[in-house]
Amino acid sequence: MAALAFQALPGFRDFTPRECAVRNYLFETWRSVARRCGYVEYETPIVEDTGLYLKKSGGELSSQLFRFEDQGGRDVTLRPEVTASLARLVAEHQRNFPKPLKWFEIGQCFRYEKPQKGRGREFHQFNVDIFGEAGPAADAELISLAIETMLAFGFVAGDFVVRVSDRNAWISFAEKHGIAEDRIPEFLGIIDKIEREKPEVLEAKLAALSLTVAEVKGFIADPANASPAYTAIKEDLTARGLGEFVELDLSIVRGLAYYTGVVFEVFDSSKSMRAVAGGGRYDTLISTISEGTVDLPATGFAMGDYVIRNLIEETTHAAMQMEVWLQRNFAGCDVYVVVADEEKRAESLKLVTDLRRAGISTDFPLTAAKVGKQFQNAEKAGARFALVVGAEYPELKVKILTSRTEASGTAENAVEWITDLLHQPDGPLLA
Amino acid sequence: MAALAFQALPGFRDFTPRECAVRNYLFETWRSVARRCGYVEYETPIVEDTGLYLKKSGGELSSQLFRFEDQGGRDVTLRPEVTASLARLVAEHQRNFPKPLKWFEIGQCFRYEKPQKGRGREFHQFNVDIFGEAGPAADAELISLAIETMLAFGFVAGDFVVRVSDRNAWISFAEKHGIAEDRIPEFLGIIDKIEREKPEVLEAKLAALSLTVAEVKGFIADPANASPAYTAIKEDLTARGLGEFVELDLSIVRGLAYYTGVVFEVFDSSKSMRAVAGGGRYDTLISTISEGTVDLPATGFAMGDYVIRNLIEETTHAAMQMEVWLQRNFAGCDVYVVVADEEKRAESLKLVTDLRRAGISTDFPLTAAKVGKQFQNAEKAGARFALVVGAEYPELKVKILTSRTEASGTAENAVEWITDLLHQPDGPLLA
Repeated sequence: MAALAFQALPGFRDFTPRECAVRNYLFETWRSVARRCGYVEYETPIVEDTGLYLKKSGGELSSQLFRFEDQGGRDVTLRPEVTASLARLVAEHQRNFPKPLKWFEIGQCFRYEKPQKGRGREFHQFNVDIFGEAGPAADAELISLAIETMLAFGFVAGDFVVRVSDRNAWISFAEKHGIAEDRIPEFLGIIDKIEREKPEVLEAKLAALSLTVAEVKGFIADPANASPAYTAIKEDLTARGLGEFVELDLSIVRGLAYYTGVVFEVFDSSKSMRAVAGGGRYDTLISTISEGTVDLPATGFAMGDYVIRNLIEETTHAAMQMEVWLQRNFAGCDVYVVVADEEKRAESLKLVTDLRRAGISTDFPLTAAKVGKQFQNAEKAGARFALVVGAEYPELKVKILTSRTEASGTAENAVEWITDLLHQPDGPLLA
Repeated sequence: MAALAFQALPGFRDFTPRECAVRNYLFETWRSVARRCGYVEYETPIVEDTGLYLKKSGGELSSQLFRFEDQGGRDVTLRPEVTASLARLVAEHQRNFPKPLKWFEIGQCFRYEKPQKGRGREFHQFNVDIFGEAGPAADAELISLAIETMLAFGFVAGDFVVRVSDRNAWISFAEKHGIAEDRIPEFLGIIDKIEREKPEVLEAKLAALSLTVAEVKGFIADPANASPAYTAIKEDLTARGLGEFVELDLSIVRGLAYYTGVVFEVFDSSKSMRAVAGGGRYDTLISTISEGTVDLPATGFAMGDYVIRNLIEETTHAAMQMEVWLQRNFAGCDVYVVVADEEKRAESLKLVTDLRRAGISTDFPLTAAKVGKQFQNAEKAGARFALVVGAEYPELKVKILTSRTEASGTAENAVEWITDLLHQPDGPLLA
């Protein structure tokens, strides 16, 4: 085929039906886990005042923005993340809700990065946050949701681990080692890159703070340096039966400047140790965004759709669970009405309407076609049943395509007996 | 409260939890009706090459675009509608799918318009299209979905009507009245505004084509001018039991240049006669977008979220149906675990985890609180049950908040008896 005149922009995805079904699988799993854990859904705008993002992150993402001037001369940006908007929303509406607020969002974000495997210029993110509770019980509740999400995707112990740290442990360390308060961000930046930095560069950077690599790595290695918050979180999650999924890892500090305490990342433990999700406590952001009008402690995490999808596809048991869901949700219909006699088209249309009205996913040939061709189309559409309307109407025949068996009934009570057949355990109904 | 530093941009909506639940009600209704009628879901990118929109519509929307240059120097636009992207997608992928393609999308679009009641700068749109079938059977199938969607929202006969027309009827009229082919777009533009134009202006414009107002209005008034396609559609929908929802209205031609045949609009018949949805046949667009590479007949419609929501809220029976859904879906949880004895917090955490894992939406107090306060929070969260964990653990008490009755059981098989209680008919489970 000749090249088409237009294509999707680099880093942007076309969700053809199967891709869209995969996306829906992620969304529905995220949504159902959050709902059963008592979170309510919200959504913020995709376009915001650019100042909101600059205020939040001090420009950390500013080189990656889809930023432009709108027709009204406003400096606006496609959201690179959701937390800044969320902080704005919570500052404005929080007094209408009992505390703590447990909120989640599933939304698309945009960053101008080099497209590569596992990263595009748009991605979907599952954002979960708790506001109004400063203690580690909120962090534990949040981390339990991250774990339950992984379990809901079919992952099991050994597939992933949540590595938990606490910036406060490092702040104590810094105080003990005489690091000036205004150099703490620089110090945390060094810790953040400790695994990726060249040894000689790391050594030089630490030396500038009168520290040695051995001191820092020794601190990371000693479990006695766990903060009280970490200990409380581990105890809480152990009571829930989730202790095995959590471990202390003080090398995690997370890059973003706005974190204020406990931070954590969910890692794929089988392969490349990619971070599947990450988050932590950010107790000062609401105050920053609202310019001191509202002060509310907060903790949250985000999980993007690229990494979790790759991980599902690489993990046999999780991939199989997704495939079962896709088979049920990507198909065109459950019942395909075969119009074997064009004289009975009007009757067929009525039957199709009745079945659909009863919630049964039903399709049929829009124009006259050979019966054999119609059966082929029924199979292509993923139908479980072909319901044949022929000269013998109101007698109907149904072919069960999965088992190649046949049944029959009359048009009068077709909805009832087709519903009964569909509930027989040879496969689930379409969602 | 002092004004906050940041607010949503004009015309952009913050979906706080209740607003988000309303949005989800629209989305889930749209999705479930489309699925049961045999349509599959896709989604196109929110940002596209600006040329795609200019190519499609000849610039009809170009004054309303959120258009900008990205960091790579590309002229890009936030999608003002979905059909151009869909045509691109279908041209690229159609040969992988049996015909006809029946596809739908639920997505956000952006237009820089003056924000007002019933119109913002972003809106969500339900887009439904059929490709690969040129005859009226496809238009009837499409219109039946528009009708089924209205019925699914709880509207009944008398609440709405689908007005169907056919540009081909006007093209025959134009030929008969000697209007040159190159003036047909101008002529259709006059018909499109016939109800809104000042009489003397209308008269002058028609006179320029050697026509009188009486000739044109006479043509509209005569049912004998229905096109063969209209007659076939009416017959098809009558066979489905949907004939009463459809009427001929030749005054409808739809503004956009790309329509090629049957066009229709769904109208609110009770109040202001707003168009709730509109669409029609556009058999040449795929060829235009693909520069002749692919040629595929097409018919489709779109329904936006603003008008349908207003109409639901103004129509008592539809509004009540939505409220029932919201009560079930906006609540925080079904079961609130009351920690009456802090000594039993670990046991409570385990219980919460077990209930959630069983799919029961469950919440609990993150920190110690008075029992009375916990009951208040249970009610605020919309919980149906308060499950009390106290000193008598593993004995548990459950208060059924809706009926103010009580039951009891043991922790060991709590999931089972709570599930049983939840399935008793005093209200539906949370979705």
